[in-house]
Amino acid sequence: MYKVDLNADLGESFGAYTIGMDREVLRFISSANVACGFHAGDPLVMQKTVLLAKELDTRVGAHPGFPDLMGFGRRNMTISPDEAKAYVKYQVGALLAFTKAAGIKMQHVKLHGAFYNMSAKNDAMAAAICEGIKEIDPDLIVLGLAGSAHIRAAEAIGLRAASEVFADRAYQKDGSLVPRSQPGSMVHDRNEAIARTIRMVKEGLVTTIDGEDIPIHAHSICVHGDNPDAVGFVQEIRSRLIEEGITVTDIESVIS
Amino acid sequence: MYKVDLNADLGESFGAYTIGMDREVLRFISSANVACGFHAGDPLVMQKTVLLAKELDTRVGAHPGFPDLMGFGRRNMTISPDEAKAYVKYQVGALLAFTKAAGIKMQHVKLHGAFYNMSAKNDAMAAAICEGIKEIDPDLIVLGLAGSAHIRAAEAIGLRAASEVFADRAYQKDGSLVPRSQPGSMVHDRNEAIARTIRMVKEGLVTTIDGEDIPIHAHSICVHGDNPDAVGFVQEIRSRLIEEGITVTDIESVIS
Amino acid sequence: MYKVDLNADLGESFGAYTIGMDREVLRFISSANVACGFHAGDPLVMQKTVLLAKELDTRVGAHPGFPDLMGFGRRNMTISPDEAKAYVKYQVGALLAFTKAAGIKMQHVKLHGAFYNMSAKNDAMAAAICEGIKEIDPDLIVLGLAGSAHIRAAEAIGLRAASEVFADRAYQKDGSLVPRSQPGSMVHDRNEAIARTIRMVKEGLVTTIDGEDIPIHAHSICVHGDNPDAVGFVQEIRSRLIEEGITVTDIESVIS
Amino acid sequence: MYKVDLNADLGESFGAYTIGMDREVLRFISSANVACGFHAGDPLVMQKTVLLAKELDTRVGAHPGFPDLMGFGRRNMTISPDEAKAYVKYQVGALLAFTKAAGIKMQHVKLHGAFYNMSAKNDAMAAAICEGIKEIDPDLIVLGLAGSAHIRAAEAIGLRAASEVFADRAYQKDGSLVPRSQPGSMVHDRNEAIARTIRMVKEGLVTTIDGEDIPIHAHSICVHGDNPDAVGFVQEIRSRLIEEGITVTDIESVIS
Repeated sequence: MYKVDLNADLGESFGAYTIGMDREVLRFISSANVACGFHAGDPLVMQKTVLLAKELDTRVGAHPGFPDLMGFGRRNMTISPDEAKAYVKYQVGALLAFTKAAGIKMQHVKLHGAFYNMSAKNDAMAAAICEGIKEIDPDLIVLGLAGSAHIRAAEAIGLRAASEVFADRAYQKDGSLVPRSQPGSMVHDRNEAIARTIRMVKEGLVTTIDGEDIPIHAHSICVHGDNPDAVGFVQEIRSRLIEEGITVTDIESVIS
Repeated sequence: MYKVDLNADLGESFGAYTIGMDREVLRFISSANVACGFHAGDPLVMQKTVLLAKELDTRVGAHPGFPDLMGFGRRNMTISPDEAKAYVKYQVGALLAFTKAAGIKMQHVKLHGAFYNMSAKNDAMAAAICEGIKEIDPDLIVLGLAGSAHIRAAEAIGLRAASEVFADRAYQKDGSLVPRSQPGSMVHDRNEAIARTIRMVKEGLVTTIDGEDIPIHAHSICVHGDNPDAVGFVQEIRSRLIEEGITVTDIESVIS
Repeated sequence: MYKVDLNADLGESFGAYTIGMDREVLRFISSANVACGFHAGDPLVMQKTVLLAKELDTRVGAHPGFPDLMGFGRRNMTISPDEAKAYVKYQVGALLAFTKAAGIKMQHVKLHGAFYNMSAKNDAMAAAICEGIKEIDPDLIVLGLAGSAHIRAAEAIGLRAASEVFADRAYQKDGSLVPRSQPGSMVHDRNEAIARTIRMVKEGLVTTIDGEDIPIHAHSICVHGDNPDAVGFVQEIRSRLIEEGITVTDIESVIS
Repeated sequence: MYKVDLNADLGESFGAYTIGMDREVLRFISSANVACGFHAGDPLVMQKTVLLAKELDTRVGAHPGFPDLMGFGRRNMTISPDEAKAYVKYQVGALLAFTKAAGIKMQHVKLHGAFYNMSAKNDAMAAAICEGIKEIDPDLIVLGLAGSAHIRAAEAIGLRAASEVFADRAYQKDGSLVPRSQPGSMVHDRNEAIARTIRMVKEGLVTTIDGEDIPIHAHSICVHGDNPDAVGFVQEIRSRLIEEGITVTDIESVIS
């Protein structure tokens, strides 16, 4: 039986600032990545998001980012592996306070933005971060870019790892994403994006920008909940996956 | 047998900024209050402080403060009980990541600065904060000002509470501290300060600024490690307590 | 001839976070209070807002707040007069960089949120802040609550002061606003709010919550641009003022 | 007649945190680079530092850094040229508030840490930043690494530029500094460091790590005031320069 998780970044509001249609997108996803106060989110927002996910029966993961609220964690920062590890531990711990208080189990950890990209390519960084996660709770699942250094680092120390794919992004031969700055990096046609995703889940294959088929793990599909269009797409991809006989379920169920 | 804890605020450095003689003072105290990144401390400092406390066999507690690094958490902020509760949970959770990773148990939670003073007097605030602590771990000990709303709130919901006294501060009839802005608020003579402390521990009495004896609980004595003088005082008060037959031990042992 | 200014808070977005319909409301107001990075706003937002105000020929003022982005500057902080003065200077200076670069003159300074309220009531705070403004540029106009300590402090040191009134708020006998926590604090009926405002401008009188008429200075009316409704009200009050023969113009023209 | 400026970074304290022996080093330097609140410094510290520099008759410049207090501005951040320009304007403007209030003229702008290094190598970044400085005040002097893109960008738009050299750093053939991570990057011998500096000032030559002489502009020498040793070195290099007939004076006098 085919299974896949749908994950989205949530809890990105901050103080008086609101971002994201959290309640709407939570109805369609199976795992929520909750911002932890460095690139987005604040303690009240974290608490509210965890309780909302619990109410709608969606699994919760920590979504640590760079300490750069002004840049929303999207700008690269040359932090050291030691700093990376400590920043992840701090943020995962902070969110754990709210999952413990809510009586739910934290399912996974997924890095945010530039932190995610850095750890996808940098072995030393990835190793340090995964060690940090393991030190807090070896039962946490590491959610990362399919085929990345981050996934390899998690598996190397015995953590469970889940590979994430993108419905609307083009892939290169080595399994990495075509950078957004390059032409053809995005799959704009919704039907094509969904068809590609179904193939990744069922066949474990994706056609690269060069027209070649490469193998890919698709435990989870990254979706967005920033605007009504994005939420509409999540609803649509969920329906289509189910029509194709694919069960949409949480990460833990997918990888077990 | 008489027992008392010595506690001090540690881990208050931040990035390139260093405050406190943490290693020196850790040799003489039995409980360390570790800053959690809001008023002081950063993830690397928190990790280092927890490991240092573990190495020197000193118990660790969280020391949450207001989100005001520029004011070192010493300025009052009119946050709501809901905000207070969420801020405490966030900070306690963040430090828990480092105590869990270090394989040690977090012993207690003590608020910092203006947050401490606010929760000592405000019942609604104290109740919200203590609920937050309980939701994370009902085994955490609440360390607060002897005779305060904070202590009462902890006891009211079944948390273990430990009362803190100050060697160098004058007390009022109702058991509260004489504000620093008033004459006679400080006990400058070291011998007098130590003698008063010994009496608080042994007899459970302190002479107020008006010359009256009032009852006081002294589970823990607050000391400082900012400078060589302060550390010298900690060493001295520790020796004198032991000479008086008082065991200096952690909070958990004192209240059990 | 009757004249009045319409002012609104703008430039409150931050990084990836957007607040306010700045372009829409700028068409109807005559003075914009631009956030300076402490409670809201960031350097790019400040630059964009100043250029937008220039394009739409609206006068610009600095809108300094407390260093509390998480609380949007709405929570009281017990800072000292020296801190208040330095915080205002820092923020006014930062915005001056963008007005100078844009080739426009900064017209005024209006405090934000809890900072505004504090300086409306606290003489020492108001004096320190107005001195800070004067030290930077004695030609800056201080915009503050009609009848407040802030206005008196500005006038006492020879700064030009402009008094602000609220269309939708009830007043007390002493000219202060009825706190939002009390019943009857808001004037919900739009027509009544506009009629009250016209009377404040033309007759210099307002009826208090107790039914008494008191004198009030109305150099500027505070309006909002957070949502379509608010912008609609700004458009309406502007039309009605003009119909009543009141010229809507900038603060400098009103008080000269 | 030979002339050179001695510059040091000052005003790097923040809130309760103290860094630097500002008063001591100010006696020996001719130009102070004052932190502006992003990587270090706060409004009160900025005000105090400007007044101290005025008292000791030392010229003042702005020292803008990355918005990274936790990393003290030493970590690279991939901000855009637009962001860089706006961040510099914000910080220069903020410090201008304090120099204007103190009745002194701001002499120069020198970037801090990773921001300095980025703009030394990146033409687009350097151009944007220098435009930002010019938009605020075309009379400001740009102080930058001798031979860098930053200096070229300043000159290209008609700003006055001053070239900075390091007494204790080794140089490469292209005039850039040997990275600290490489062997031989530092000149540890004080006498050698001073002799090299004197030669840079008098002959406009420096011997690279490969033993070759290359031309170098030395308008200003970067010194440090973090600890007694550093201050001792500043005093020594100042005496030796004067003994060699070199006038130690401010940047404006050196380049005019």
